[in-house]
Amino acid sequence: MRVGVIGCGFFAGNHLRGWQEVEGARVTAICDSDPERLEAAVDIAGHDVQRFRDADDMLGSGLVDFVDIITPPHTHCALIRAAAAAGVPAIVQKPLSLDLKEAEEAVAMMEARGLPLMVHENFRFQAPMRRLLDVVRGGEIGRPTYARVAFRTAWDIYAGQPYLADLERFILFDVGVHVVDLIRSVLGDVVRVSCETDSIRPGITGEDSATLLLRHENGAIGVVECSYASPVPGDPFPQFHVTVEGTDGAVVLAPDLGVTIRKGAGEHREVIKPEVLPWMEPPWEVVQDSVIAIQRHWLDCLSARRETETSGRDNLQTLRVIEAAYRAAGSGRAERPVAAT
Amino acid sequence: MRVGVIGCGFFAGNHLRGWQEVEGARVTAICDSDPERLEAAVDIAGHDVQRFRDADDMLGSGLVDFVDIITPPHTHCALIRAAAAAGVPAIVQKPLSLDLKEAEEAVAMMEARGLPLMVHENFRFQAPMRRLLDVVRGGEIGRPTYARVAFRTAWDIYAGQPYLADLERFILFDVGVHVVDLIRSVLGDVVRVSCETDSIRPGITGEDSATLLLRHENGAIGVVECSYASPVPGDPFPQFHVTVEGTDGAVVLAPDLGVTIRKGAGEHREVIKPEVLPWMEPPWEVVQDSVIAIQRHWLDCLSARRETETSGRDNLQTLRVIEAAYRAAGSGRAERPVAAT
Repeated sequence: MRVGVIGCGFFAGNHLRGWQEVEGARVTAICDSDPERLEAAVDIAGHDVQRFRDADDMLGSGLVDFVDIITPPHTHCALIRAAAAAGVPAIVQKPLSLDLKEAEEAVAMMEARGLPLMVHENFRFQAPMRRLLDVVRGGEIGRPTYARVAFRTAWDIYAGQPYLADLERFILFDVGVHVVDLIRSVLGDVVRVSCETDSIRPGITGEDSATLLLRHENGAIGVVECSYASPVPGDPFPQFHVTVEGTDGAVVLAPDLGVTIRKGAGEHREVIKPEVLPWMEPPWEVVQDSVIAIQRHWLDCLSARRETETSGRDNLQTLRVIEAAYRAAGSGRAERPVAAT
Repeated sequence: MRVGVIGCGFFAGNHLRGWQEVEGARVTAICDSDPERLEAAVDIAGHDVQRFRDADDMLGSGLVDFVDIITPPHTHCALIRAAAAAGVPAIVQKPLSLDLKEAEEAVAMMEARGLPLMVHENFRFQAPMRRLLDVVRGGEIGRPTYARVAFRTAWDIYAGQPYLADLERFILFDVGVHVVDLIRSVLGDVVRVSCETDSIRPGITGEDSATLLLRHENGAIGVVECSYASPVPGDPFPQFHVTVEGTDGAVVLAPDLGVTIRKGAGEHREVIKPEVLPWMEPPWEVVQDSVIAIQRHWLDCLSARRETETSGRDNLQTLRVIEAAYRAAGSGRAERPVAAT
């Protein structure tokens, strides 16, 4: 499959390297409006790729079988609509959009044309998280009753991405979409959201701390926590902490990538580290490895004509939880995730 | 000071042994309607104590300087009112009452007569928890912004207290009052409560799982979790997990009694184990030690005419959070802890 990469910023290098590891995929075209960033990407992908300054030109070129969109969030939906118009499947980085209504329209447009659309939610494709998901989905801990996903750090993320400090809606769209996707991956859809947010670090415009209390459709209770103002011991950045409890046991994923499974009276722990390739850099290895895993999943589903786990349609449910969380933080009520009106 | 113990059930042995470690206190009278339980208590306290079958007789005897009430929850307030009428200070086991209005009336009656009243909330007097509180109150981690207190276990508490399975309102009054007291001890009063509850274990009448999302008066966000249906790895029973984050650091108390303090880039960990006396029994040592600590606190405050940390008045705030939690679980709204009307 011929991959067209759109956007050559902060995270694109991981996607480009990732595609080189995926059998059956090959980056044949790269697009960025900034010539310098474009050339840096070409240096990674190889000088035989086609260069584009404009995404529409790439989409209309007939040179790509799908596009991988790695641009800033506010541009995602316009690019998805352009892909739909050109009849090209798309993967898009998270968040799908900052605007739920816009996201719903873009997803609907792809679906109307029968075009696959996947959101690049790589947290759930990290190797130890896959192990946890296998345990839960395999029924090993019985009926899930509770889960907690926490991402709390004081890592200076503003050094690499200074614009984060100015976002009106910040951590819920930055890392919140990841952790809500994680809890949805284990407990399924959410029917009620309570939320408290805070802006702790001086000079930050939006919320840099958010805590969600969730009720899931299956009756389970969920807790989602994210904070960039958490000077916790042994700062786990960029890892998260997941606990899932069921009627017959529990499974815990710790930031050291250890997965502990309790079934009945027995307990078992394994540390799941990914294969470290030469281009990977600590502390990002497990994240970088997950990019390859998500790309493989996309390719597998594409060839099998199967819906991806984090399809556009699925990801709308995550965005609805995020919207409900903002509403709940403002209203002091538990809110229901719903479609935009 | 001459101590009159009322109630000789499940936990009374710890109180009786505890008083023997507290300089300046001596159990001089014991009361229980059941002669067998009474004699078992006398065997611990010493055969020179006065025996009473009726609490009013003890309160009117002039033989005690204060009473230590260790009876079932529904009897607490009647006994406090009797103590008030007799002009006798009182410590009472948690929960102060299952009925907020009744609790407010009993507290008001003691206050009107200038009589000290303390609720025996021993979790916050556990040695490692005191260390954590010293760190927070000493300003070592800056302004507190977040705390989480979790008590999750699958320990078979029903074996020793089978009546727990039949309570309409269960875990929030059983262990919830403890963990809400803990989070109030670090973050202060609560202004908003969201709550989800569940009844997981088969055959349990009330809720055996409850999760609270709290907003505190100081702006901090709190999470309180309790569950008796949590088969988590390394079941921590009877210990809890506390994390407190502030603007300058964080402090974590783990169930192994380890206290980890992070200040700036530095980290320090210490395990705080209590002195184990011959009558103490694992896994209860740290709880049993805390009984002595709370008894000392009571005696210190009594002689200095100072209000105890967990006075009746203070503990009403905990009960108001519990009431608000039940309301929130029912209404799907965040609720405000308020006085009973």
